[in-house]
Amino acid sequence: MAKILPTIKSPADLRKKSSSQLARLAGEIRERIVGVVSNRGGHLASNLGVVELTIALHRVFDFKKDRLLWDVGHQAYVHKILTGRNDRFETIRQTGGLSGFPNIEESEYDLFNVGHAGTAIPTAVGMARGSSLIGDERRVVAVVGDASIFNGVAFEGLNQAGTLRRQLLVVLNDNSMGIAPTQGGMAEYLAKFRISRTYEELKKRVKKYVPQVPLVGRATFEALDHLKEGLKATVSPHQIFEQLGFVYVGPTDGHDLDHLIELMNGLKDVNHPVLLHVHTEKGRGADFAAAEPTKFHSPKPFKVEGCRVEIQSSGRSWTAAFADALITLAREDKRIFGMTAAMPDGTGMNKFADVFPTRYLDGGIAESGTVDIAAGMCKAGMRPVAAIYSTFLQRAFDQVFQEVVLQELPVVFCLDRAGLVGGDGPVHHGFLDIAYLRGMPNMVLMAPGDGEEIIEALRAALKLNVPSAIRYPRDTVPEPLLGDKPPPPFEPGRSLQLRDGKDATILAYGSTCRPALDAADLLSADGVDVCVINARFAKPIDRDMVGEAIGRNGPVVTLEEHSISAGFGSAVLETARDLGLPTDCVSILGMPADRFVPHGSRAVQLAECSLDATGIAAVVRDAMAKSTAAERQTDTVLMYDETDRRVQSPV
Amino acid sequence: MAKILPTIKSPADLRKKSSSQLARLAGEIRERIVGVVSNRGGHLASNLGVVELTIALHRVFDFKKDRLLWDVGHQAYVHKILTGRNDRFETIRQTGGLSGFPNIEESEYDLFNVGHAGTAIPTAVGMARGSSLIGDERRVVAVVGDASIFNGVAFEGLNQAGTLRRQLLVVLNDNSMGIAPTQGGMAEYLAKFRISRTYEELKKRVKKYVPQVPLVGRATFEALDHLKEGLKATVSPHQIFEQLGFVYVGPTDGHDLDHLIELMNGLKDVNHPVLLHVHTEKGRGADFAAAEPTKFHSPKPFKVEGCRVEIQSSGRSWTAAFADALITLAREDKRIFGMTAAMPDGTGMNKFADVFPTRYLDGGIAESGTVDIAAGMCKAGMRPVAAIYSTFLQRAFDQVFQEVVLQELPVVFCLDRAGLVGGDGPVHHGFLDIAYLRGMPNMVLMAPGDGEEIIEALRAALKLNVPSAIRYPRDTVPEPLLGDKPPPPFEPGRSLQLRDGKDATILAYGSTCRPALDAADLLSADGVDVCVINARFAKPIDRDMVGEAIGRNGPVVTLEEHSISAGFGSAVLETARDLGLPTDCVSILGMPADRFVPHGSRAVQLAECSLDATGIAAVVRDAMAKSTAAERQTDTVLMYDETDRRVQSPV
Repeated sequence: MAKILPTIKSPADLRKKSSSQLARLAGEIRERIVGVVSNRGGHLASNLGVVELTIALHRVFDFKKDRLLWDVGHQAYVHKILTGRNDRFETIRQTGGLSGFPNIEESEYDLFNVGHAGTAIPTAVGMARGSSLIGDERRVVAVVGDASIFNGVAFEGLNQAGTLRRQLLVVLNDNSMGIAPTQGGMAEYLAKFRISRTYEELKKRVKKYVPQVPLVGRATFEALDHLKEGLKATVSPHQIFEQLGFVYVGPTDGHDLDHLIELMNGLKDVNHPVLLHVHTEKGRGADFAAAEPTKFHSPKPFKVEGCRVEIQSSGRSWTAAFADALITLAREDKRIFGMTAAMPDGTGMNKFADVFPTRYLDGGIAESGTVDIAAGMCKAGMRPVAAIYSTFLQRAFDQVFQEVVLQELPVVFCLDRAGLVGGDGPVHHGFLDIAYLRGMPNMVLMAPGDGEEIIEALRAALKLNVPSAIRYPRDTVPEPLLGDKPPPPFEPGRSLQLRDGKDATILAYGSTCRPALDAADLLSADGVDVCVINARFAKPIDRDMVGEAIGRNGPVVTLEEHSISAGFGSAVLETARDLGLPTDCVSILGMPADRFVPHGSRAVQLAECSLDATGIAAVVRDAMAKSTAAERQTDTVLMYDETDRRVQSPV
Repeated sequence: MAKILPTIKSPADLRKKSSSQLARLAGEIRERIVGVVSNRGGHLASNLGVVELTIALHRVFDFKKDRLLWDVGHQAYVHKILTGRNDRFETIRQTGGLSGFPNIEESEYDLFNVGHAGTAIPTAVGMARGSSLIGDERRVVAVVGDASIFNGVAFEGLNQAGTLRRQLLVVLNDNSMGIAPTQGGMAEYLAKFRISRTYEELKKRVKKYVPQVPLVGRATFEALDHLKEGLKATVSPHQIFEQLGFVYVGPTDGHDLDHLIELMNGLKDVNHPVLLHVHTEKGRGADFAAAEPTKFHSPKPFKVEGCRVEIQSSGRSWTAAFADALITLAREDKRIFGMTAAMPDGTGMNKFADVFPTRYLDGGIAESGTVDIAAGMCKAGMRPVAAIYSTFLQRAFDQVFQEVVLQELPVVFCLDRAGLVGGDGPVHHGFLDIAYLRGMPNMVLMAPGDGEEIIEALRAALKLNVPSAIRYPRDTVPEPLLGDKPPPPFEPGRSLQLRDGKDATILAYGSTCRPALDAADLLSADGVDVCVINARFAKPIDRDMVGEAIGRNGPVVTLEEHSISAGFGSAVLETARDLGLPTDCVSILGMPADRFVPHGSRAVQLAECSLDATGIAAVVRDAMAKSTAAERQTDTVLMYDETDRRVQSPV
């Protein structure tokens, strides 16, 4: 039988297909997704769960005019396939290929570049109000997962949405999970819902909001009438969404395509906020993914051989090294309490939870609340260690400030995914944490240079009586910096010299230590003798280190997987100025300040930032060529200039 | 009759008083608060509303052992008066006096320094869990207002609280208002509650959670029995708090002291999260405050003369200048949409709302949601201008990143209270915004130097196709920088020279321009000739300005009402390094990096940071003494060193 998928060039083509053709299409889309993700890695289980939902949305609405917002966005693969991007789908997450998230540069159907959860509802409220004010009256639809909808900002959006006096459809995609099982009282509450009411109630409830324009009104009621017999979606009153001002419809089966289409046809012209509660299954259609949806949330490439599925492994991760270190320390100190915000697998906290189930909390997709809980724990006498991705701690910036820093509580933040994140790209890069934490009084910022140093950094953090943050990247740990020698303890404000050299000095922070040593090897082959320092602390920075580095003859190059603006290099400049030393000999290497490094492989991203061995060596050579012992000239890091110019004339 | 208040040296003294004595005490406390606040300014209406509630809490619980958390904290005056601080109460918010918020250095009864709303519930959850793990089983109570409880982080806390299997009392202090009337669907929902159920239901609901220890259990039930007749507080099932896993009790009259005490006695040993819903009246007991609670939320000193109440006025504020500018521009461009997050008076948006009621939204105490709504509005084609205090935009950091910056949406943020905030102190200083916004690609950061420049900054922001933020302090506008001359338009990346001079250069950002000019006058009297530049932009910074300043002979001093870490001065250093210029001639003046400037008058705070004319002049003199034309020596800003040392050995 001829395939349907190749005939879908745009959502309009969906409207030409029969019910049975659409059902086949759903199967083909699942096949396509499993095929590509098994080769390339990517988000799997969530996308398999929304195949019918996405087909129904694009069949019923016309999102050239209407507006569709995907919360989080990792579940937009089906949407991409249906909106003209099927032919490029195998490039997803690869350098130069499609983004793994909605992307405004890719398609007019993608409205926001997103990757952080919970924001679609307030954004949709803004679009709905804006559209009414502008007067183009577009329909607005937001699709939100059950773990995201009770995130703080999502709730703030729900609270505002209820007061809208116009169309807004929020689709609650309820699979009982976020990336991990959904946490909290609301999850228990949602789990109680069962199909219970009749069609007549639905009709009564929505009737008053259906426009009085005869044609539209009639079409809606015809669609609703169509549902009359054998209705699966129903209305359940007296519950949170109605209290917030929504008309609530559901729960309904998110894999019954015909029914979803009928239902959405019935709801699309309701002139009032509607919440449509849809039950879906993560990993639907691929047994291995449905059985272990957390494992197959965002797997690396894997092979399906008969009933055996194997995820390709690529060495020990920083995440695993962190988890092992924390477990070791927690055996020594029973006050240690492990926390994560909906990322037990991604942060390694699942391993900790296995060993210490009563000393562990998954706060759910609620970073702000999780940080406050950590602060309360700490005040009560525990030693909470909160492992949160660098990009997601941004969501708790004010709680870090108020509940932790203002009180000088020694909460330990472990910032996984600090730096370039590869395939996830700009929505997940951890490029601001040094900048946003550095200005907070008494905060200690450190970064281990290799997997061996993580336990030393953690041990030091747990000895502090002030807050601290430890950053490390999304990668495998490098070859140990000191070979077989164990690393010396971390002491606040003390760096570690990794290699002596007289021609130039590299001040490397965290994950950049290994490429710095490799660059030194490359330079050594040319007879250039480079000193390499593992800075260990961005705050308090090792002032002696800065003084000695600048006091030497050669150029100084700072390295960090972070924006070159306001980060570690900037702290080096501030310290030098404070010491009365010149800074024109300093080069700052890091992520560019005024553009985002696109998604792709980490190797390509690091090279783009000159943070690989070759790039670092080239910058050192360049800096040496420019500098003389008598009169130092500065180097210019190209990307800085380039992007600065871009902003200088933004209009 | 002898006063009761002087006999209350600690909460234990409350337990010796009769019901009628406590009622008299409530009156005396109100008198005391109105007396002090009318002289000193401070938070008034909210504190008058919680007099009985606070007395009841301290009468029933022993917060030497039990834990009491005040959300926001501006309503803790009664708590301060009852916990041994009545004799110092007239020093509140003054330099060297009591803080206007809970403060851990003041009293063992204050557990967290807070001033931002919504965080008490998750913090209490952490304290409750921590206490159970530590094994000291303290009771935990959080008092939260009706505007704060539906803030995102509060909701995240409620969602976690419902899963606690131990005591936790959340008191919902419902006065139908935040600082302004509460916003959103939940407010409408709460407004529907009426007293409706019977005592028997309460008893039935809480029974299973009362400890089986005979004595405690009996006491509880005796207390409950006591309530049997004429019960005012009742149980209303089927609603949001019960869905979240709480036992809900209320609503009850928050001014009926005897009843509150009985009720809390009944609830204090319930081994389950309880939400006690209390109705109070803002401004209770002072007619002028009850009639206009928003005006008397946090007034300046005022006079009560008969029935005439007059708030002391002190000149035109930056806030008023902003509001007038926005109104002027909104007349020219109907896409302009004004937004605030629960601060219509504080940001001047109430004036805008009066003129353009349909082009205005108060997002409530929900900064994250408000920023996302702004992003959606902007995407829909409007030009939202969101006026949010610098310290409160911290709460929307991730939304600024994801929904605004990643999409390059030209949302305009107007950061009121940027810099030193006087009496509110550390919980409200706006000292991080440059640091946390500077690393965001394409963000434009600017600051007007006087009231005349605000409209020019706004006009420039509204012409951009990228996001921008405009900062200005909590103060009256200074004497115009250019006298009668209107300021020239703002052009991104272009500074404005205010005064020429050959001996030294001051690069002043925003509110520091006026004191810079005044310092130049002081120095001029000594024959020192100082060039003063109004930097206008922190990003993109004026590179030519930096180049020329450092290229001159004398020292360069940068000024900002912001942390000296990662702020404007740091951007100057980065730019100089990028241009290959030395930075050892640069001095950076601003707020200290490693401690908080205490509350008090702005004049004292500015002097402490050397940001007043005298301080600036002294630093310039000092820098000149150290520098010579031949070999530049750097200056050292004392506070930097001092505090850096503090962190270097934090253990």
